[in-house]
Amino acid sequence: MAQKPSIPKGTRDFSPVEVAKRDYIFATIKSVFQNFGFQSIETPSFENLQTLMGKYGEEGDRLIFKILNSGDYLKKADATLLANKESQKLTSAISEKALRYDLTVPFARYVVQHQNEIEFPFKRYQIQPVWRADRPQKGRFREFYQCDADVVGSDSLWQEVDFVQLYDTVFTKLGLNGVTIKMNNRKILSGIAEIIDASDKLIDFTVALDKLDKIGKEGVTKEMLEKGISEAAIEKVAPLFDFTGTNQQKLNQLATMLASSAEGTKGVEELSFIIDTIETIGLQSANLTLDVTLARGLNYYTGAIFEVAAPEGVKMGSIGGGGRYDDLTGIFGLKDMSGVGISFGLDRIYLVLEELELFKEVALPRPDVLFINFGNEEALYATKAIAKLRAEGVKSELYPSDAKMKKQMMYANKRNIPYVVLVGSKEIEEGTYTLKNMSTGEQSVCKLNELLEVIINS
Amino acid sequence: MAQKPSIPKGTRDFSPVEVAKRDYIFATIKSVFQNFGFQSIETPSFENLQTLMGKYGEEGDRLIFKILNSGDYLKKADATLLANKESQKLTSAISEKALRYDLTVPFARYVVQHQNEIEFPFKRYQIQPVWRADRPQKGRFREFYQCDADVVGSDSLWQEVDFVQLYDTVFTKLGLNGVTIKMNNRKILSGIAEIIDASDKLIDFTVALDKLDKIGKEGVTKEMLEKGISEAAIEKVAPLFDFTGTNQQKLNQLATMLASSAEGTKGVEELSFIIDTIETIGLQSANLTLDVTLARGLNYYTGAIFEVAAPEGVKMGSIGGGGRYDDLTGIFGLKDMSGVGISFGLDRIYLVLEELELFKEVALPRPDVLFINFGNEEALYATKAIAKLRAEGVKSELYPSDAKMKKQMMYANKRNIPYVVLVGSKEIEEGTYTLKNMSTGEQSVCKLNELLEVIINS
Repeated sequence: MAQKPSIPKGTRDFSPVEVAKRDYIFATIKSVFQNFGFQSIETPSFENLQTLMGKYGEEGDRLIFKILNSGDYLKKADATLLANKESQKLTSAISEKALRYDLTVPFARYVVQHQNEIEFPFKRYQIQPVWRADRPQKGRFREFYQCDADVVGSDSLWQEVDFVQLYDTVFTKLGLNGVTIKMNNRKILSGIAEIIDASDKLIDFTVALDKLDKIGKEGVTKEMLEKGISEAAIEKVAPLFDFTGTNQQKLNQLATMLASSAEGTKGVEELSFIIDTIETIGLQSANLTLDVTLARGLNYYTGAIFEVAAPEGVKMGSIGGGGRYDDLTGIFGLKDMSGVGISFGLDRIYLVLEELELFKEVALPRPDVLFINFGNEEALYATKAIAKLRAEGVKSELYPSDAKMKKQMMYANKRNIPYVVLVGSKEIEEGTYTLKNMSTGEQSVCKLNELLEVIINS
Repeated sequence: MAQKPSIPKGTRDFSPVEVAKRDYIFATIKSVFQNFGFQSIETPSFENLQTLMGKYGEEGDRLIFKILNSGDYLKKADATLLANKESQKLTSAISEKALRYDLTVPFARYVVQHQNEIEFPFKRYQIQPVWRADRPQKGRFREFYQCDADVVGSDSLWQEVDFVQLYDTVFTKLGLNGVTIKMNNRKILSGIAEIIDASDKLIDFTVALDKLDKIGKEGVTKEMLEKGISEAAIEKVAPLFDFTGTNQQKLNQLATMLASSAEGTKGVEELSFIIDTIETIGLQSANLTLDVTLARGLNYYTGAIFEVAAPEGVKMGSIGGGGRYDDLTGIFGLKDMSGVGISFGLDRIYLVLEELELFKEVALPRPDVLFINFGNEEALYATKAIAKLRAEGVKSELYPSDAKMKKQMMYANKRNIPYVVLVGSKEIEEGTYTLKNMSTGEQSVCKLNELLEVIINS
């Protein structure tokens, strides 16, 4: 009995057109990574369970896909756990491998494991799929690609400068002009927490502040008070409620406001260096903005924080992000490895390019020319010509059977093949080819080199 | 406490150099696939368990990696199965997804599921990893890539002709001249089984026959008799023991020998057509050979059988293979879809290219030029130059910190960076750059456009 075929929820098949568009984004990102001196590594799809567990918080542990041990996996399992159906406790007994959840932990594991083969600072990029047992929803999948670039082994702020330029270059190359690269610094956030004397309320604080545009100064103040932030504290950060002007003006306001916090002041200095340098060098099409509400990855970032927003008018969450972390590899036993990295959100970038019709230049996955098949003699003549065209880089194919002409032409039409070649006994005798331009309908009889020229120059 | 990092057995990390070499092979195969009119699809890494189970035989079922259900996966599991620790029977209750075992079954599933969006004949290629819980050994991994091209929806033998040319083109492009493309036909094997009246002993027969080179005519006869093939039967296939000469001569011998078998005769005709056509067209560097012992995929191939052997002198199993199957999609409810496909063995091709030193032209994963960092002022000057070089496609990077000169030069050396640029206050004043060729040690002071020219032309 035939099964009705389907795929697991949260996963996707990609058609030839989708693969071509995705490959275009991958290739663009990859070429810029290489252009900036990054090297590619690849790690296995599954890691030892213990490599991944405990690295992403409790929620993360739950969302990791575990692989069932092969063979008689229950043999050594604890009978009581089985009898009581204690799923969670049983897991480590029947599963010792799990699918990659992100690229960062495998990268940290790689760096520690291969530290003696690596030249530091190590500039690596990695473009591979990851898997999460998240509830699938619009734009959220259980299998998706991450595109990461990181540098470990250097705490120089020139890396942050480099990453701002890298974002700018990739999005400019993709034709996606006008993205906003938002930056903040973990130390500025710590400084704010320090002066308001409420480090445990930092997230509440930034979440409330982020709503300034929507609910105004009063609304934000109200929410902060509700969250238990004192009036005196709110007073101290009052400048943030009128936080406008250039990046320079914002930095000046922050410097004044955080003067009493050593860490906050350090954060302002770091961000100033990056922003000043980028202003001197200039960007191609992106904007760089200081955004003091940016708090992503608060748990692990220790310095710069990046996030990229699509150009104005496009409704989409962040299309990239990253930051600096001071101790990525410590969990695997290699201390004092400062790192900084960024990531591109492939699926969202895809949707933005689609919305703005920026895939125009992606070559469609179809041959340049189809040779119609009128029978074995004609097909042999065609096949010889096809071999020559292919050698010149012209994507060519022969319709495999001598089906009705109409059917073959329909195939060419549906696959958007721009040229069709017809050869009958007359052409074979004369050593010629009848070339048909499928969009204009024009037909001409020509020699092979003419045919090649027309197709290559079209 | 730090964990000592490792990866699951049978999996691999790939270093930048390995990724570059693998990418070179992938890119070569991909460009030829496209050149021949094939389109790429991608399917999810995991499929529904029922999509995969029962498609690869009992052994295959065991080797499929199953993914443990998320959440409280034991909740609905049968208590008796748990109490009795019946691993195998429990599996479908606690796992509903499994990692892809090959690309063929997911392809069949894809074709059926998307049949209304596809133009037939459908020429698809797919380059993705697959996973098997095989015992790891030299050259056999639990995660490895398959590179497949198939055509479904046409039984034309021109496809087989196309695949022979495709193999020839890929290996020629890789510089791997002199591979042998072996061909057989399932119908010839059936014909042989028919005339020896022992269809159940076909595998024993071909396995024994394959040893002709090693154990001679007598050894083969002895083994066949031991396997229960009668003397009368062996008599009938006597021509196979002196099966030498050109492909044409072999085909003639087979035609005579199999004259009484309709199916065998059909197989000889099919193979004749392919071999004759290829002889007329010619190949670039590969050899095409009829090999009547070739019996791979006997269970599912129904026509042509392909296998590619590395050039003589290289000890390596087959580096490619494929064949025609008449009913790929039937298991998923779409009947009468004849297909034919081939596959490239990436890992073995890698080893062969390494052995024959054919990776010479692969660009090393390193920047073309490193700018030494003497401090922030110099770094800013360098960064402006780097931006211009990168825009011209020159892979460039700044050493991130103003570490000791020696350390920075060592980094350049170890990463095999061919050029280093030094800029101090003198260069900044003059608007020049000191360019050092790392292999010759030569140094010259030049303007940016000269520097660009030297690097691009090197």
